[in-house]
Amino acid sequence: MFDRAVVVGVGLLGASLGMALRSRGLCRSVVGVGRNPETLEKAREQGAIDDFDVRLEHVLPADLVVLATPPAAVPGYLQALKQFSGSSGDMVITDVASTKAAICGLAARLWPENRPFVGAHPMAGGEKWGPEWANPQLYQNAVCFVERSETGIDPMAYTRVVKLWNAVGCRVVEIDPQSHDRFLSRTSHLPHVAAAALAMAAARVGADSRFIGNGFRDATRIAAGRAEIWRDICLTNRQEILEALREYSKILGLFSDALETGDGAGLEKLFDQAREARREVTGS
Amino acid sequence: MFDRAVVVGVGLLGASLGMALRSRGLCRSVVGVGRNPETLEKAREQGAIDDFDVRLEHVLPADLVVLATPPAAVPGYLQALKQFSGSSGDMVITDVASTKAAICGLAARLWPENRPFVGAHPMAGGEKWGPEWANPQLYQNAVCFVERSETGIDPMAYTRVVKLWNAVGCRVVEIDPQSHDRFLSRTSHLPHVAAAALAMAAARVGADSRFIGNGFRDATRIAAGRAEIWRDICLTNRQEILEALREYSKILGLFSDALETGDGAGLEKLFDQAREARREVTGS
Repeated sequence: MFDRAVVVGVGLLGASLGMALRSRGLCRSVVGVGRNPETLEKAREQGAIDDFDVRLEHVLPADLVVLATPPAAVPGYLQALKQFSGSSGDMVITDVASTKAAICGLAARLWPENRPFVGAHPMAGGEKWGPEWANPQLYQNAVCFVERSETGIDPMAYTRVVKLWNAVGCRVVEIDPQSHDRFLSRTSHLPHVAAAALAMAAARVGADSRFIGNGFRDATRIAAGRAEIWRDICLTNRQEILEALREYSKILGLFSDALETGDGAGLEKLFDQAREARREVTGS
Repeated sequence: MFDRAVVVGVGLLGASLGMALRSRGLCRSVVGVGRNPETLEKAREQGAIDDFDVRLEHVLPADLVVLATPPAAVPGYLQALKQFSGSSGDMVITDVASTKAAICGLAARLWPENRPFVGAHPMAGGEKWGPEWANPQLYQNAVCFVERSETGIDPMAYTRVVKLWNAVGCRVVEIDPQSHDRFLSRTSHLPHVAAAALAMAAARVGADSRFIGNGFRDATRIAAGRAEIWRDICLTNRQEILEALREYSKILGLFSDALETGDGAGLEKLFDQAREARREVTGS
């Protein structure tokens, strides 16, 4: 499918993609790029990449570049690739960032036509990070959002990126970047902030593990995620997350009001609505 | 250990306790009491109880009574048991409610001395309910909070209740009811309200299951719990939960402020603090 693939960022997502590309024979070689030679070496030892370099420019040209860095690093790499892409007609570029509007918007400005970049967000991974957790099945059955093709993207690049994500096991869902960011702000980004705040609230009263049940562990598991990634997600989807937080505060206010007045029927109704809401959105 | 045990309320916790008592030979017979004859019959068919009745008065005297109803129903049963307890010297009473200050306070008023009731809260169960989910191992290795004995409790009753919870597999932790309710408001009750509000926020933008990852499922799992129980928990621990909600809002405000100003370093610090806080309280 590809000759030479470059994966920039060999954390959980990048290293797992490298493994999937290699184990499924989807490319001849995978080259890793990152800031930290030790992490790159670890990824190589694990079989995620064939070779590596700390500079993207050193390993181009390539016919596939996947940007698997924290979200805020993607724009810089897009600009570097724009400089380079004049001399490489068939390079396609995709990414894995959890926010899409800012990144896809920049790409549309960099390449007003024949854009080689197609934004993607595979819903894989979790609170673990680093190549040591990588596995070639990480993407199996994961939803992968791919931005809609209506925005000046080169049709061949589009086809190849969709094929790539399908080939590593994803279920591709096309979506415009703004809708993506709105939905994810509610189903992923707000839950992360909420879980982080819960962990902090429990620590402030000095709760210890005797007071911790499975409910707390589950509710706060995502707060164990990597701070750098979540900082970037917040910074690149600020308005939607702020809007989600405002909505969340209003809903919490409904519970507070019912608590203040001791409104048992109101509380029961809210908890019933919440259970129904969860059933509705999770489909189970 | 006991001759005749009465379990009031044969949901997940009550039916599982009946199974544990019977399978471990901790009493000669277990009688279930509840409002719904169908549920009682189901519990009997599952081997959780030997017999049942819809009226507590009909099945007394007993040497053990466990109140395993939703929390708000416990006070009524305590009052009924007070009426009866004059004629039965060796009856001991315990409960499983998730809030303790209101219940233990009432018991202390009902029995100013030689109190036969010892409040307990085994941290077992989850978002499932009903006798169909019961199992005799539910209490194995669960922490069971038992109120401290300094408040007029009959020493023999105290010893027998602690032995009971140990005998079904719990790790007993003694605690005063106020501290219990404060800690649990942060580690259980607030997380429940927070999860319920998250599910509602996601439903309000019409998110569907394609946008739902494991993070959301975990973070909101407890919102699938039984509304009636959570209504009662809220009503019987109002002040602490309101205080927890105020604290939670303040912490969410720190995230909002950092988002408003695009303060990346501040956001990263908050997420780092949250991860550390979670590690600290969960002990893992």
